[in-house]
Amino acid sequence: MDELTITPHGVQFKDRTYPIVDALSMPTAERKWFEQWREGGLSCVNTTIAVWENSRETLAVIGKWRQVIAENSDLVAAATSVQDIERIRQSGRTAIVLGFQNTSPVEHNIDLFQVYRELGVCIMQLTYNLQNYIGCGYWEENDSGISSRFGRKALEEMNRVGILIDLSHCGERTTLEAIDRSAVPVAITHANPREFVGTGVYGAGRQKTTEAILALAKRRGVIGISPNRNMTKRGAATTLEEFGDMVAWVVDRIGVDAVGIGSDYCPGHTGSVRTWWRYARWSREKAPAEQMTMAPHEGWSDWVRTPAGLSNIIKELSRRGFHPDEIDKMMSGNWMRLFSETFVPMAK
Amino acid sequence: MDELTITPHGVQFKDRTYPIVDALSMPTAERKWFEQWREGGLSCVNTTIAVWENSRETLAVIGKWRQVIAENSDLVAAATSVQDIERIRQSGRTAIVLGFQNTSPVEHNIDLFQVYRELGVCIMQLTYNLQNYIGCGYWEENDSGISSRFGRKALEEMNRVGILIDLSHCGERTTLEAIDRSAVPVAITHANPREFVGTGVYGAGRQKTTEAILALAKRRGVIGISPNRNMTKRGAATTLEEFGDMVAWVVDRIGVDAVGIGSDYCPGHTGSVRTWWRYARWSREKAPAEQMTMAPHEGWSDWVRTPAGLSNIIKELSRRGFHPDEIDKMMSGNWMRLFSETFVPMAK
Repeated sequence: MDELTITPHGVQFKDRTYPIVDALSMPTAERKWFEQWREGGLSCVNTTIAVWENSRETLAVIGKWRQVIAENSDLVAAATSVQDIERIRQSGRTAIVLGFQNTSPVEHNIDLFQVYRELGVCIMQLTYNLQNYIGCGYWEENDSGISSRFGRKALEEMNRVGILIDLSHCGERTTLEAIDRSAVPVAITHANPREFVGTGVYGAGRQKTTEAILALAKRRGVIGISPNRNMTKRGAATTLEEFGDMVAWVVDRIGVDAVGIGSDYCPGHTGSVRTWWRYARWSREKAPAEQMTMAPHEGWSDWVRTPAGLSNIIKELSRRGFHPDEIDKMMSGNWMRLFSETFVPMAK
Repeated sequence: MDELTITPHGVQFKDRTYPIVDALSMPTAERKWFEQWREGGLSCVNTTIAVWENSRETLAVIGKWRQVIAENSDLVAAATSVQDIERIRQSGRTAIVLGFQNTSPVEHNIDLFQVYRELGVCIMQLTYNLQNYIGCGYWEENDSGISSRFGRKALEEMNRVGILIDLSHCGERTTLEAIDRSAVPVAITHANPREFVGTGVYGAGRQKTTEAILALAKRRGVIGISPNRNMTKRGAATTLEEFGDMVAWVVDRIGVDAVGIGSDYCPGHTGSVRTWWRYARWSREKAPAEQMTMAPHEGWSDWVRTPAGLSNIIKELSRRGFHPDEIDKMMSGNWMRLFSETFVPMAK
């Protein structure tokens, strides 16, 4: 039996059931995406609910997601621990871990980390592309790292209250210094290895250096490899086998314990929302017309047009000879281990 | 007649009337400080109304100041041009130019500069002590200058809409790069020359290098020399003559056209507000007990315990042999020239 079977509790393949954790998705708050998750056998999704929002706006966004999760409690439930995630998986639903892709919701207020953690936000990216109070994004010319007073305090506070630090869109120096400074392991929830994908792809600048992923793994962090066509070597033409090449390339360098999946699947948003992600209110520029009109995931590889396609990775990893225990780590286990170490307040 | 006489229109000394512009004060919104300004013959004060406030808080602060100015229209009036300032001076009142000591009210929104300018805010400091979206403050270990995408856009926008850029609390690189990048002259509203005051004083790190003030003057900017005891060579013991030494030292280096006065007089605030200035919400640290209990301007030099004392500088500059025209420039003319060049939207 080399066929994949989607079950309520994960993806069955060769008599083993694999839960899938998607370490980053940013869908609109709509039932149809939850249905896709169920169709794909996803057990848990780190769901981005804020990118540039300030504190007031973020409260509204949290409220909206609370309501949508409640309205769709047959498909999803909110989780703030690995115990929650496992319980929700066993109930045949997908666990939603609320996350921010920026610290704009915190503004400049050290006390707000704890407030958002109490509201269920367990993952925060330090910055989205640009310089902020804490560090710098990959899109800045100059990355001053975690050198600001607030940045250093913020990392300590995220560690203290149990928020997983995500470095996906951070610049190189900010990435390296955050890995080094955090008292607990950190995440790169959605990025690919720059050395592997090359500099020819659209999102090349955002991909991570080999130095960064080696440092991440050394501190027991995890990177989510992404099939997002903007970040793969041959874009939409990338085959499942070529995606497997990338995963294997990373495993060869940083080990099987540091690798997971982060789809970066962001469906349902209008062109103006995609412009907002890129330019927010800090610029009057407009996103390229191509980005404005492109439908969600238009042009992604055939084998992963929706998150249901992530299950194909199980088959590919098996074909390459990875042991079922290794496949399980990459599909969910490594994220679960990292979540178990970081979603909890630090012992005093 | 070597006596100073305070008149409704300025300070009379040797048959000439000198208007006084104080380039930075941060009093509570209370009538008693306006009375002091009138007692001292001040024609215009750049009045700080926001330090760490976000946009929502700033709207309330602007509303509060609108109301207090209206309630005290016998003493003060709001100005957004040199014509306003002159008209208000001739009416025997003090012109208030609203200013921010931070760009926190703008948050990360390029459109808000224009909104605040419409609301009468003509002067903004790029950052208060720390790293923000635009640049870095003097209190950071690492100053990345005006290297962020938003920082570069923000300077262009401040130029465009007619907001004077203030660099007093900025770090060295941010100061130099802002001087260089701004299309119009900029201000250091309240700081002293670091080389002159030495590194022994409390606020030494915030004082400006000779390189910075030379660059400022070369681009036709103005620095406001301050009698604030935290920033003078001998603190509270600093005499009027020693303050005159500092002014003359600066004039010798950067010329009489680049020198003005900025008192940094911040009366009426409680200890908790002074802690807020320093630590806001970004830290849980407390200000030193000495700062918490010190009364406003306790321990400032006898000749300048209130802004009424600024008029003594006229006598001192005269004693040192400055020409009345030079004294007039330093007491008000240089600021008026800079305001006339910067409070106006840029020609298309």
